[in-house]
Amino acid sequence: MKTIQQYTDLIHERITALPLDKEPAGLYAPIRYALDAGGKRLRPVLALAVAEAIAGDCEVAVNQALAVEMFHNFTLLHDDVMDKADVRRGRPTVHKQFDENTAILSGDTMLTLASQLAMEGCDTSTLRPVLNMLNTTAVEVYEGQQLDMDFERRADVSVDEYMEMIRLKTSVLLGCSCALGAIMAGALPQVVRAMYSYGEKLGISFQLKDDWLDTYGDPSTFGKAIGGDIVNEKKTWLLINAMNEDKEGVIAGVLGKNIDAQEKIEIVRGVYNRLGLSERCRSLEVCYAEEAVKSLADAQLSAVPYRFFEELALNSVKRNK
Amino acid sequence: MKTIQQYTDLIHERITALPLDKEPAGLYAPIRYALDAGGKRLRPVLALAVAEAIAGDCEVAVNQALAVEMFHNFTLLHDDVMDKADVRRGRPTVHKQFDENTAILSGDTMLTLASQLAMEGCDTSTLRPVLNMLNTTAVEVYEGQQLDMDFERRADVSVDEYMEMIRLKTSVLLGCSCALGAIMAGALPQVVRAMYSYGEKLGISFQLKDDWLDTYGDPSTFGKAIGGDIVNEKKTWLLINAMNEDKEGVIAGVLGKNIDAQEKIEIVRGVYNRLGLSERCRSLEVCYAEEAVKSLADAQLSAVPYRFFEELALNSVKRNK
Repeated sequence: MKTIQQYTDLIHERITALPLDKEPAGLYAPIRYALDAGGKRLRPVLALAVAEAIAGDCEVAVNQALAVEMFHNFTLLHDDVMDKADVRRGRPTVHKQFDENTAILSGDTMLTLASQLAMEGCDTSTLRPVLNMLNTTAVEVYEGQQLDMDFERRADVSVDEYMEMIRLKTSVLLGCSCALGAIMAGALPQVVRAMYSYGEKLGISFQLKDDWLDTYGDPSTFGKAIGGDIVNEKKTWLLINAMNEDKEGVIAGVLGKNIDAQEKIEIVRGVYNRLGLSERCRSLEVCYAEEAVKSLADAQLSAVPYRFFEELALNSVKRNK
Repeated sequence: MKTIQQYTDLIHERITALPLDKEPAGLYAPIRYALDAGGKRLRPVLALAVAEAIAGDCEVAVNQALAVEMFHNFTLLHDDVMDKADVRRGRPTVHKQFDENTAILSGDTMLTLASQLAMEGCDTSTLRPVLNMLNTTAVEVYEGQQLDMDFERRADVSVDEYMEMIRLKTSVLLGCSCALGAIMAGALPQVVRAMYSYGEKLGISFQLKDDWLDTYGDPSTFGKAIGGDIVNEKKTWLLINAMNEDKEGVIAGVLGKNIDAQEKIEIVRGVYNRLGLSERCRSLEVCYAEEAVKSLADAQLSAVPYRFFEELALNSVKRNK
């Protein structure tokens, strides 16, 4: 196994080599801009690491790794338009840097490019499973985004509904990334399922940590302002639990009201603290990371790869950005 | 061979049977709304007719016919957002009936559903050619839409550039529809290419007729107001030629000016008439329809199917809506 940094470097190198210096530039330059923004590259790293763990060679899944990264970035372009988000990874979002039409059309192009990349290197035994996995996952991601938007207009979202939403919107693509690595490595269906489950559980753990960091992160390491979710009244695991459990009506008295941002953050965080939500969110995060590791049992991994994925889950729990 | 109406009826029936009565309704109901709007269903009809012409059975390509119709409607959803179009086929566009986010996300879903439909019924010999054809075409359609938007900001668009734009934006999908029907029918590569070429040439003929009808159509049969392209200063074949040839500067004196819509239509149509553009547009349309028919020579069709596609091209030239 390589290190996570080595997989990340490989993906960077291959993204840079993608033939996107093409006409019409109005269509392709924004794709280059979006892909160059970086990010953790967690999805392609998972695909590569799984392929190497099973086949001893990460190159067999490199195009599928690029496909999930391309797909992920397509969803970011469109989500940022839908959410009217101005900044992504410290830079203007594509619809801000260019315009909304660009974000829509270049995003569409990225979705089709993802399909094309996913097909590369497939033989007749892997082509259909790879595309079925990618397409099924894609539809789930759209359903998750729809639920996320629906939830913003509802006051009665349950924790179970929220968990299902983040599973669809975020986790299934991590599961898909692992599964594509396994399929390309020629893994048995049972192994593909185990690695999918690992990625899916890891994804839920990741999302819970993202929610937690936005409220409880260290401003010096988090990279953006703390409390943005509270200010925007984003229905996170923390807020949904607080809305359901806060019998004193403090949350209800704050949401939708014209209150100073810093004051709102303090009040809502005060309720979170009173309800013990910070610790409960962290333990749920740990719980899903442990579930992810348990999924590995069916993946028939040898010791070194097993340890790699175990550590990846543990490091996810430890991360502070 | 069945009649065009019979193929259209079959497609209507299969579209109605698509499992779109699903949750989240915010995602799937707009897809149903968009598909139910109807239209000529030219693309799926071509796929079905080609499959029947070659294999004697249109059912072999019915999922690919649905795929191209789904893909086409996805492009309409996103194009209507980009073009800020309020009405489509006499009804509010999806982003007007629902909202822009819906048009974006339901459109994305339709693109992936199109991929899934295209895979259905494929065996190992057809899966890759079908998806390569659909994906290559999709990217060309995006490039065509980008060029179309680029052209609206340029004053120096040449006729050649315009022809390449409509080839990409419109014609390749008709070529793709024919090719998918041929691939699913087990046709030889030479036959697939011939039928692609037929659809592509027919598509250019169709687009030229659409341009012409918008200016010269009969209001009683055209179905929408005549002259919309002129009022919106849309860079059609007619306007681009007029801009390039109108030495008297009448066109330049009208574009971008605040002139009464009816007056603008009269002035611009006057220039078109002076330059003989109505007749030249019609003859170019006929020319491409004839090219389409010539492409059939390499398709090794028997007499009845040959006559079907020949008539389809001739009827396209005769249509007044």
